[in-house]
Amino acid sequence: MNPTLEIFSQGEEIVTGQTVDTNAAWLAQQGVICGFTVTRHTAVGDKINDLVELLQNISQRADCCICTGGLGPTSDDLTAEAVAIAFNLPLEFDETAYKQISLFFALRNRVMPDSNKKQAMLPQGAERIDNDWGTAPGFSLVVNRCWFVFLPGVPTEMMSLFQESVLPVLSSRFLLQPKKLVSIKTFGLGESAIQELINSIEIPAGVELGFRAGTDDVQTKLLFPFAYPKTIMTTLISQFTEKLGDYVFAIDGLDEMTGDLVFEINKLMTHRKFTLAIIETASHGLFASKCIGYEWLLSARYEKSIGKLRQNTISASDTNYLTSVAKQMAINLQNSSQADHVLVQLYTDDTETLHNKNKPIMVYNFLLNKGVFYQANHLINGPIKRKQNQAALFTFDLLRRYLQQKPMNFQNPKDC
Amino acid sequence: MNPTLEIFSQGEEIVTGQTVDTNAAWLAQQGVICGFTVTRHTAVGDKINDLVELLQNISQRADCCICTGGLGPTSDDLTAEAVAIAFNLPLEFDETAYKQISLFFALRNRVMPDSNKKQAMLPQGAERIDNDWGTAPGFSLVVNRCWFVFLPGVPTEMMSLFQESVLPVLSSRFLLQPKKLVSIKTFGLGESAIQELINSIEIPAGVELGFRAGTDDVQTKLLFPFAYPKTIMTTLISQFTEKLGDYVFAIDGLDEMTGDLVFEINKLMTHRKFTLAIIETASHGLFASKCIGYEWLLSARYEKSIGKLRQNTISASDTNYLTSVAKQMAINLQNSSQADHVLVQLYTDDTETLHNKNKPIMVYNFLLNKGVFYQANHLINGPIKRKQNQAALFTFDLLRRYLQQKPMNFQNPKDC
Repeated sequence: MNPTLEIFSQGEEIVTGQTVDTNAAWLAQQGVICGFTVTRHTAVGDKINDLVELLQNISQRADCCICTGGLGPTSDDLTAEAVAIAFNLPLEFDETAYKQISLFFALRNRVMPDSNKKQAMLPQGAERIDNDWGTAPGFSLVVNRCWFVFLPGVPTEMMSLFQESVLPVLSSRFLLQPKKLVSIKTFGLGESAIQELINSIEIPAGVELGFRAGTDDVQTKLLFPFAYPKTIMTTLISQFTEKLGDYVFAIDGLDEMTGDLVFEINKLMTHRKFTLAIIETASHGLFASKCIGYEWLLSARYEKSIGKLRQNTISASDTNYLTSVAKQMAINLQNSSQADHVLVQLYTDDTETLHNKNKPIMVYNFLLNKGVFYQANHLINGPIKRKQNQAALFTFDLLRRYLQQKPMNFQNPKDC
Repeated sequence: MNPTLEIFSQGEEIVTGQTVDTNAAWLAQQGVICGFTVTRHTAVGDKINDLVELLQNISQRADCCICTGGLGPTSDDLTAEAVAIAFNLPLEFDETAYKQISLFFALRNRVMPDSNKKQAMLPQGAERIDNDWGTAPGFSLVVNRCWFVFLPGVPTEMMSLFQESVLPVLSSRFLLQPKKLVSIKTFGLGESAIQELINSIEIPAGVELGFRAGTDDVQTKLLFPFAYPKTIMTTLISQFTEKLGDYVFAIDGLDEMTGDLVFEINKLMTHRKFTLAIIETASHGLFASKCIGYEWLLSARYEKSIGKLRQNTISASDTNYLTSVAKQMAINLQNSSQADHVLVQLYTDDTETLHNKNKPIMVYNFLLNKGVFYQANHLINGPIKRKQNQAALFTFDLLRRYLQQKPMNFQNPKDC
């Protein structure tokens, strides 16, 4: 029997629906992978009686409970107080927590508001979980059958604390039989196109197949039982990668650490000491924005669409003209930037089309390296922010295919 | 006292985190607007005992409970069965439901699988809620103090059934007094700094004060009771805006529709037919990216930091040099872009500082219009993506303050 895990979220913004509780889903996923059976999620608002009653109930029925939210400095942050009341563990001043919170403000040249002192008060016997990302330390304690972990509600802080301070100690506290999750990451294929491609593959008993369609990729997920034979696992994964072909840009859960499309490109660019300059139109600065912290991007420029450059909208039949404009722009950019790789992204449509979620735009991407041009064109539809993001990703994908020596994906991608 | 509402979600995909429970947030929002006090969300998997226990508990403590999921045709859809067991209301065959399900398949030229017959079995005394969008009818019933509403988990079906069949009957079942939410949106003040500024304001009984700290702003929220006197409301809001001063960029819930910082700037830029060009460094294209769809941004350029431009890191004492460089860049950009407003954002630190979450960067923003320069400098700390986002927002905020004729915010903002 797996140990049981409950997720408990605190905050009026959750319970009133102002905030969608993505923390609960993320923590539940982590719990399943670790080998817990997740039994329940509960969210309550800033009502001390509800919090107290719930904590008492959970302490009787779950082996582990991860709680988020309610650790802030304000009067509606009641978690520590509720724990103190529920389990008769008076709040005590934690000298180290206080120093950390003071340091947080000192490093920022700011005076610590009085209200933040509250965050250094922890229930008697609680173990502090240091928070390098914000002012609220987390804490953990065992009551009845349950090991409670309290984390801040800000997602980035919550995830960092979970990964750095909770995950490493789980295996010493619980007898866990972790499953093995392998995620095959693709760009350019929708979920149903993937399903069609893979539906002839037989999934062995015990292996769970799932999909996760994000804004930047689609992940095909295979969840293998504890201690699953490595050879069967490897064979199954290669059946999948064969079917999904060059749409696959990374595989998570094997030997290598992988990330999103831009992370993978960064590895390739950095390794080969390449440099890049770009002119972007439809993605409107988002390409450059996704490259934050990467030294190989030497310069980036946002320009209005090619239509605007020419003072009128050009038609699809003008692609020869468009290609010659793009090539000249790329050559000029290479000369001015001294980058060894140059990308030019153009689109021919007007602003109305960009805004209209029922009209697609055609985006033309050109890559120039050592005097050779590579090109890929894509129709992109949907709301304006989706068009922007997809435009950036298709430009990245042209670069990724070049760096990984995959075929250029000229045609429109399938169902995405 | 408002009637209380609980949201109850059923399904392994929710409890294991494969699906984020957006239904719960949506239903909670609807509930709050209608005048319920939403007290709790609970999600459990496909475990009959958990379902039964939870239904019994909720029937004792809530006035209304909206449940989603578990109405499908498969063996893991247990909601009706759980209701039958929990409240001793045996499942009965509903002739009309059966006809509707048969029709659903007939209209699609498909044979009804045997498993779908199960969906026509409803707990004794339940009122059927017709579902024109799928095969699962919903149902409602009163047990103990609670009116339960059971809806399918597919979001489009759930929302349709709620709007067409639940919403219209709520006011006949409950004495509802919808509240009024006013959100004061600020940029440049942290949550605890706001609390300190406003703590001398006396909040009238019945008015609820809350905060929501997002990545792009902090919202101070005032929730007013039903039919609250307009004059007291207006007076209270102006006390808040006076204390929060020029950090306020918009107020939601009054007469005017407002949005985020960039949305507000767009209104001002568009109204006055202004145009803009920008050179950004630390925000790395994110400024331009946030302006997608706005015609007034004529061009944007990402450049490496001023340190890189000069081939070495300049020190804080070089601000004269930095200022003269920035001004020259702004003048050149204005000449080349023909924009009437020009922004130049620079920072002096190296890439290591940008990456180091414990080291702040200093960002210098310059605005040029009609030969006059405006400047604001800010220390920004935290992880690299936070630095990027804050850099973009401070640049926007300089522009917003100029457009709204607020004082320039030279000093470091408080606690954010």
